[in-house]
Amino acid sequence: MSAGQVIKCKAAVAWEPGKPLVIEDVEVAPPKVHEVRIKIVATGVCHTDWECLYGTGKGMKFRPFPLVLGHEAAGVVESVGPEVTKFSPGDKVIPLFLPQCGECERCQSPKTNLCKKNWSNTQVGVLADGTSRISCKGQQVYQFLGVSSFSQYTVVPHTSLAKIKSDAPLDKVCLLGCGVSTGYGAAIKTAKVEKDSSCAVFGLGAVGLAAVMGCQAAGAKTIIGVDINPNKFAKARVFGTTECINPRDHPNKTIQEVLAEKTCGGVDYALECVGSPVIMTAALESTTDAWGTCVIAGWSETEAMNVVVEKILMGRTLKGTYFGGWKSVQDVPKLVDDYMKNKLKLDEFITHKLKLDQVNEAFDLLKSGESIRTVISLF
Amino acid sequence: MSAGQVIKCKAAVAWEPGKPLVIEDVEVAPPKVHEVRIKIVATGVCHTDWECLYGTGKGMKFRPFPLVLGHEAAGVVESVGPEVTKFSPGDKVIPLFLPQCGECERCQSPKTNLCKKNWSNTQVGVLADGTSRISCKGQQVYQFLGVSSFSQYTVVPHTSLAKIKSDAPLDKVCLLGCGVSTGYGAAIKTAKVEKDSSCAVFGLGAVGLAAVMGCQAAGAKTIIGVDINPNKFAKARVFGTTECINPRDHPNKTIQEVLAEKTCGGVDYALECVGSPVIMTAALESTTDAWGTCVIAGWSETEAMNVVVEKILMGRTLKGTYFGGWKSVQDVPKLVDDYMKNKLKLDEFITHKLKLDQVNEAFDLLKSGESIRTVISLF
Repeated sequence: MSAGQVIKCKAAVAWEPGKPLVIEDVEVAPPKVHEVRIKIVATGVCHTDWECLYGTGKGMKFRPFPLVLGHEAAGVVESVGPEVTKFSPGDKVIPLFLPQCGECERCQSPKTNLCKKNWSNTQVGVLADGTSRISCKGQQVYQFLGVSSFSQYTVVPHTSLAKIKSDAPLDKVCLLGCGVSTGYGAAIKTAKVEKDSSCAVFGLGAVGLAAVMGCQAAGAKTIIGVDINPNKFAKARVFGTTECINPRDHPNKTIQEVLAEKTCGGVDYALECVGSPVIMTAALESTTDAWGTCVIAGWSETEAMNVVVEKILMGRTLKGTYFGGWKSVQDVPKLVDDYMKNKLKLDEFITHKLKLDQVNEAFDLLKSGESIRTVISLF
Repeated sequence: MSAGQVIKCKAAVAWEPGKPLVIEDVEVAPPKVHEVRIKIVATGVCHTDWECLYGTGKGMKFRPFPLVLGHEAAGVVESVGPEVTKFSPGDKVIPLFLPQCGECERCQSPKTNLCKKNWSNTQVGVLADGTSRISCKGQQVYQFLGVSSFSQYTVVPHTSLAKIKSDAPLDKVCLLGCGVSTGYGAAIKTAKVEKDSSCAVFGLGAVGLAAVMGCQAAGAKTIIGVDINPNKFAKARVFGTTECINPRDHPNKTIQEVLAEKTCGGVDYALECVGSPVIMTAALESTTDAWGTCVIAGWSETEAMNVVVEKILMGRTLKGTYFGGWKSVQDVPKLVDDYMKNKLKLDEFITHKLKLDQVNEAFDLLKSGESIRTVISLF
């Protein structure tokens, strides 16, 4: 029994910004009150992990180092801390960077999923008591977004953990911890795409493909994928695009002009899944006046987008989505169920499977555009 | 009987940008097919009129001159052109810069009021056949937004005209032709302000005061008026503000910081009623994350606002309103009825009453902030 003991295991440690991760022996302390220690079985590798390491100050705020990245994962409960009643050792779980405490004003409102439980602490890499449970060579190692799934074991608050079906394949459903849920929910929950509508999805990575899948599930008639990498178009068709456009094929027009021409003035819904302010402006301007809705799903913490006032005055709506609008603890298990009933694709996102010591290679595949999602096995 | 004849009357002509209006004898041609000639009894003087004359290129696009400004008016039908069935001489009416043809996809959708009937023509000051009905000294004079209520007579399309109660006081209900409807609808129709919510209204001119009135009608608990002119605060209280703030009283904080402190993180709804991109950004950032909604009601045709991406990602919504979201032909008569049932204030907006030959004085009162609305009698 490891409960109550410090666990020694492997983790990929980010010692400083801009440097590759290093596989280290780390120590993971037992869970404190309201915390759960989990064995991470599989983790996806998300752009936000990469951005935190290599894009600090550009698209991301600075976070304290050293830290263990990784926030899109699935695992098994190893032990629980005091006053944890909803989890037991052996439960299959998905750790959540967005909590759902169930008690605050936000959790009780149907308007939002943005529970702020432990928010300021997790943003700087620590848990409720102001410390991390991971250490390496005697030094505290911060937990990215309160998760740190690039470690074989980690500790999370019980309000940041979703219990899922015992027969769920962890090496697939890990993707519901971030990218797929974000894009799918951006279309269904935030944009509320309607039947027979027209949609444009900017960026055909995992978030974008999940948005395409959401548009299709909502019954959209036209789903236009937009990406400067045409190698992504074949896969996009699998998820439901009716057409794909490479903006570089139209050097004399903006993408918003191209889309306006194709759709008699603009699409009903545009989903930005890149995280680039310039593309956000293009996405907004690609929607039709009168009722066009643009949802920002791509992440950027430090930049601003330009909004021509008249575009807003003429009936467009600009919204953002965080974790696809899903209430994390209650909705992630439902998404797992939907996957297991074949209502939701996950396998098709996975282009590569690697081991933890290949995590830097996974970053390379992500940045080159070769991978959609690499799933890393921790054991 | 003047029907079928050219009418000679007085109008305030804008001969060129940046120069005061000149009272001239103009000729108003008979209405053509689907057009109605109306005698303007009273007109409000709106910031947009001033902007078109003095702010071209800054907040407004260039429009062809000479033109007759004025677009917030009420009058009586003088004669109707061929194929006009819904209006007869003597009907009391409000001319509309936003049409409602009743037949297009937009008119049939509950999502928008943005009918585009004759849109491109009215934007450049002409009617459906590409010409104006007003001329002066043998020269065509353009009709601002297709209306031109700074003329004793004008001609408008029958799809841009609302028939109102025969006992409606035209020198009051003229305000429903633009500013009051815009602000009131921004709160009720576009923002959909909810009971017990908190609201901030930026700019306490006619549009802003009408927005305050809309917030109050919707049952908002907190309504904070924001203006750099504290002389407007007493009147704002009449319309329903629970508090007023002058940003200049807080030199070391932004207004969004002041509002966030007062409202535990930000207001539920912010309404920008100034038309300034910098204030639009402040309004958006004054709303709470998770569910804050910012509606832009102030007009700016040529500028862009800055939107920090994270503000949108954290659950805020940015929307615009045009004519308050009202479907013009059908909703303006209802607003007139509401006024006559004392459900809606109009008299309180009117600070000055002048004659047509005092129109430049009305502009001065507007720009100095001395007036809320001046109503001009045309006869």
